[in-house]
Amino acid sequence: MTWKILEKLTQPHHKMFTADTQIRIHYALTDQMGVVYHGHYAQFYEIGRAEWLRKLNYSYKDIEAMGVIMPVVDIHSRFLRPAKYEDLITVRTTLKEMPLHHKIVFHHEIYNEQGTLLNTGDVTLYFMNAKDMKRCEIPAILKEKLAGYFETGQ
Amino acid sequence: MTWKILEKLTQPHHKMFTADTQIRIHYALTDQMGVVYHGHYAQFYEIGRAEWLRKLNYSYKDIEAMGVIMPVVDIHSRFLRPAKYEDLITVRTTLKEMPLHHKIVFHHEIYNEQGTLLNTGDVTLYFMNAKDMKRCEIPAILKEKLAGYFETGQ
Amino acid sequence: MTWKILEKLTQPHHKMFTADTQIRIHYALTDQMGVVYHGHYAQFYEIGRAEWLRKLNYSYKDIEAMGVIMPVVDIHSRFLRPAKYEDLITVRTTLKEMPLHHKIVFHHEIYNEQGTLLNTGDVTLYFMNAKDMKRCEIPAILKEKLAGYFETGQ
Amino acid sequence: MTWKILEKLTQPHHKMFTADTQIRIHYALTDQMGVVYHGHYAQFYEIGRAEWLRKLNYSYKDIEAMGVIMPVVDIHSRFLRPAKYEDLITVRTTLKEMPLHHKIVFHHEIYNEQGTLLNTGDVTLYFMNAKDMKRCEIPAILKEKLAGYFETGQ
Repeated sequence: MTWKILEKLTQPHHKMFTADTQIRIHYALTDQMGVVYHGHYAQFYEIGRAEWLRKLNYSYKDIEAMGVIMPVVDIHSRFLRPAKYEDLITVRTTLKEMPLHHKIVFHHEIYNEQGTLLNTGDVTLYFMNAKDMKRCEIPAILKEKLAGYFETGQ
Repeated sequence: MTWKILEKLTQPHHKMFTADTQIRIHYALTDQMGVVYHGHYAQFYEIGRAEWLRKLNYSYKDIEAMGVIMPVVDIHSRFLRPAKYEDLITVRTTLKEMPLHHKIVFHHEIYNEQGTLLNTGDVTLYFMNAKDMKRCEIPAILKEKLAGYFETGQ
Repeated sequence: MTWKILEKLTQPHHKMFTADTQIRIHYALTDQMGVVYHGHYAQFYEIGRAEWLRKLNYSYKDIEAMGVIMPVVDIHSRFLRPAKYEDLITVRTTLKEMPLHHKIVFHHEIYNEQGTLLNTGDVTLYFMNAKDMKRCEIPAILKEKLAGYFETGQ
Repeated sequence: MTWKILEKLTQPHHKMFTADTQIRIHYALTDQMGVVYHGHYAQFYEIGRAEWLRKLNYSYKDIEAMGVIMPVVDIHSRFLRPAKYEDLITVRTTLKEMPLHHKIVFHHEIYNEQGTLLNTGDVTLYFMNAKDMKRCEIPAILKEKLAGYFETGQ
């Protein structure tokens, strides 16, 4: 079992579940405390997820074009240190588990240029049919793209 | 002719083209200059227009329900003095002329609680069919509601 | 002890810990899913807290004027149903426990006009000295205003 | 004189007054019309100006560090075509004239990936001392950096 874990940790493709994207903080994102307003971090997570999908050669636009939408149903944010004007932050987005049925959970970490962790966010989204607003299974094409990265069988 | 102008100026219903609405400035609207970020004033104008329509017993939602949308095509803002956190600002929205064809122009003035003018905004919108995205005439029902307030004939 | 709890539950002033405030959804808050963008709810909570303080005849501006700031350190949001354009939502803000030391936790519930619960948010803030950015005790004046509403002694 | 104009038009360094920066449209920027909300363009201009300064090896943060702030006093936006979700827009920022005294005017053009012009914005800012909020001259260091690009003498 130990060996199995080790193998898992060293599998190169495991890194591909994580996508990094950078955002330069502009003035509109600051508040009069002189830091980024806490309410804007949800947007940073969203940008991180879009980039994560793009690394799979996919996009949220493609998903909507199939008639599927992905509303956010739960967010948990922890604010450790503030981001500031002109900071170039990195949003690291990770899918830790293969999505089951209609639910997908992303973990986001936000770092400043010095590599200090500023913020974490766990975001749960559902797959839903835009037509009837009923929950649906994760689209097959997305499941396939992810399959290679998760152990599925044993 | 002078008499005609005078009559116009003293017509009491002329005041009804103007609708006032109040907005309390919350933290998210401030920036690190300690004032309201300039980019948020377009939202104040939007809120002013919605309230202006509501005073006509109408709403922008009703307009969209008819298949008509009203994209903004031009904004000119002048920033005279800053609004600050917790200020209770008043957005005064005025339609100065009966809209012609597909075009409507609103004039907005923003005041603080002391009655000081902080900002003005002139916003031009078009009436367009949502279906084909072509410009269309102002909806008849809105024209009727406005007719009483403007001299139409001579 | 049972009697004590009962008394607590029936104390009329207990309702005063909860403040309701209403927000009309404007267009800027919607996204192309046709609902309020999830990232904007943190602003609704902020507006709720400001109103909650105002009901105590106090304001966040007063707190900042004392050299104390209140950064948000944790948010947990649950999205049950979407808010939509022109909805008049109610933000219900509750302080469930007397704040201890540097920490205060608010519970927010958001309802639509039909009284349906749309969203809940638990927000933790710290009291900090603006000067040295160190955590500090809840300001004495705020503690006093709250003291009447919580059992403090035995 | 014609020759002079020609020479001006062909001076290679003249292009350096213009800085291009790209922005990927995320969901938060859309509204229920399915396009970017008009109120967000002021942020695009701001991002364009910051990038323009960065190309001069300078930043707005440096300006604030000198005790100078640059409030926006006038914006004129024209909306020709909408930007949409996932569009990669280009903000082209140009300083057409050497700033005089306390005033600087930027011209912004926003293009989509096909090179279609979507929007233009003319933004006027003042240089002001943060301490007393009085207008002041353009900082000497910024004037120097710009001097090479404009004919100053004859």
